[in-house]
Amino acid sequence: MRAAVMTDWELRIDEVPDPTPGAGQVLTRVLACGICGSDLHMLRHGEELRRRTAELEGEFGDDPTAMKPVVFEPHLDTVMGHEFCCEVVEVGPGCTIRSDGDLVVSLPVTFDDRGLHTVGYSNLYPGGYSELMVLNEALTLPVPNGLSHRLAALTEPLAVGVHAVAKSRIAPGDAAIVLGLGPVGLACVAELRMRGIGPIVGADFSSRRRELGELLGCDVVVDPRERPAVAAWRDLDGQRPLVVFEAVGVPGMIDAAMRMSPRDARILVVGVCMQTDHVDPMVGISRELNVQFALGYTPEEFASSLDAIAEGRVDLEPLLTGTVDIDGVPQAFADLADPDRHAKILVEPT
Amino acid sequence: MRAAVMTDWELRIDEVPDPTPGAGQVLTRVLACGICGSDLHMLRHGEELRRRTAELEGEFGDDPTAMKPVVFEPHLDTVMGHEFCCEVVEVGPGCTIRSDGDLVVSLPVTFDDRGLHTVGYSNLYPGGYSELMVLNEALTLPVPNGLSHRLAALTEPLAVGVHAVAKSRIAPGDAAIVLGLGPVGLACVAELRMRGIGPIVGADFSSRRRELGELLGCDVVVDPRERPAVAAWRDLDGQRPLVVFEAVGVPGMIDAAMRMSPRDARILVVGVCMQTDHVDPMVGISRELNVQFALGYTPEEFASSLDAIAEGRVDLEPLLTGTVDIDGVPQAFADLADPDRHAKILVEPT
Repeated sequence: MRAAVMTDWELRIDEVPDPTPGAGQVLTRVLACGICGSDLHMLRHGEELRRRTAELEGEFGDDPTAMKPVVFEPHLDTVMGHEFCCEVVEVGPGCTIRSDGDLVVSLPVTFDDRGLHTVGYSNLYPGGYSELMVLNEALTLPVPNGLSHRLAALTEPLAVGVHAVAKSRIAPGDAAIVLGLGPVGLACVAELRMRGIGPIVGADFSSRRRELGELLGCDVVVDPRERPAVAAWRDLDGQRPLVVFEAVGVPGMIDAAMRMSPRDARILVVGVCMQTDHVDPMVGISRELNVQFALGYTPEEFASSLDAIAEGRVDLEPLLTGTVDIDGVPQAFADLADPDRHAKILVEPT
Repeated sequence: MRAAVMTDWELRIDEVPDPTPGAGQVLTRVLACGICGSDLHMLRHGEELRRRTAELEGEFGDDPTAMKPVVFEPHLDTVMGHEFCCEVVEVGPGCTIRSDGDLVVSLPVTFDDRGLHTVGYSNLYPGGYSELMVLNEALTLPVPNGLSHRLAALTEPLAVGVHAVAKSRIAPGDAAIVLGLGPVGLACVAELRMRGIGPIVGADFSSRRRELGELLGCDVVVDPRERPAVAAWRDLDGQRPLVVFEAVGVPGMIDAAMRMSPRDARILVVGVCMQTDHVDPMVGISRELNVQFALGYTPEEFASSLDAIAEGRVDLEPLLTGTVDIDGVPQAFADLADPDRHAKILVEPT
């Protein structure tokens, strides 16, 4: 099958063997797969990410009993893509719940007798930048009738926001500032809005991203070069307990979030800063701040994200700024570097 | 009166004018005043602390409507000492609840028509390294009959631990690691024990401090050069939700606490690191850690700390490692640099 293949941190379009479903697995045709910032990051900084992850695994905080996914080998082919919506084309041995033609989404993990695999970061299980994928039947969720495969493919990125908001313990009556209106920040805004949180202040350098922030639920958006987000919050409200969502993920952002935060504020870090970063503990101490880090989502949050989209509780249509076929993936990776052009590009392989 | 006086960040023994009580204030004789690490820090790094505090006040997180204490002028005399137990010797105009001879403790703040003042860091209100103090009657608490003035003077440092533990949201069924068994870490241990939290693992380089940790309630203590605290916790338990109390307050400790923490752990930062510090957000993100900063205590926590000591729910006697008169204050400041010699030195002025 045709796929966008990463080998030695280079992306190319190539033919790779068709995957075959094992026991309890289904073979699917990819209808749409969103391109995630993590994939751009993996291509550019994968070697460093691997090194850092390996370092952390040797540390005491690491749980030696936890089941860890099989790590991919960068010299071998990897097909990325973990925000997918697929159509079942063949059910493997022992499958009982899915049939040919079913539209499904799935947590981007699968397991077999070799262990746990992260779909899209695996040499064994190609992700959605390809024509075909193998999924564990038990982890698939049916896409409700009538929901487009494009919107269904946004289940995964929405789940990241749903999880971050849950981790922040924000409640009605609290206010939110969202720093960074990329897909992660926008997913946070969407979930905050669904929960009835307000006011929501969004901050981004890009005017296009700020427009998206407004469409998804920000009460006010600011260019932080012109007006600090916290000044906008003080003008709007300034009284409610405040949660600052850090969805940028570059060095200095946690420090910036702490410095702008008023006494007793909470900071939810969902942007992934890979480098060693600096903070000023005096700021945290003098204001008794709380910093919560968040990653990923639970299976329940994934399922509820699909439901929210399917039931129309959130309209993620504005996020969809482009579609490409498999041949267009490398160019789409390049185009996503410009926040004024794109939020989410979907790959539609066929 | 005789006092240990700080001027231009130098400590000397000198005569200063006796304070006089205003409306709603009482004049008291100091029976005992603990020497706090903050005072050693103020003497050594006060200028930097002032500069950093002033910087923070200009930032957006700073609440412009909050009532701020009057800042002391370092070129003028300041008498430090904020962990005191006193005897009322004269009641000022309008006082209705205290009488001569009453033993009292108080939050180390006072207010008058010039504003709010932090007792012990004020040019106007001398602290407990002197013979006499003026306190706001409304903020004094009577020392219950029979409680020694020495133990009563430990109300304030215990309150720091009571507050940190409350801020950590630790609950029965959780486990705790306390990094640093100075007076702050030991107060955390004491409060954790009062709340029935266990196991408690304490870590300190000093063998004397580790002994105190055991006396105050640690289930096990470690020298982190020989055995990581988290290894001791894994041997004892390793399953319960974990809260790591950072009570050292030097650069690198927050990072160290994060690196030793297992998935979903909470870190309570009560050690005051004044310098810019480094952290590794990847550690926090991959384990979804929570970092809560804590400072000070509430009036309720201060009162409950006095009650806990008076009712014998906690025995802080082991903390008391020395007493000096006013002339001995400078030497006591020097002696406290050696953690194997001292935990808490009390000044008994008369």
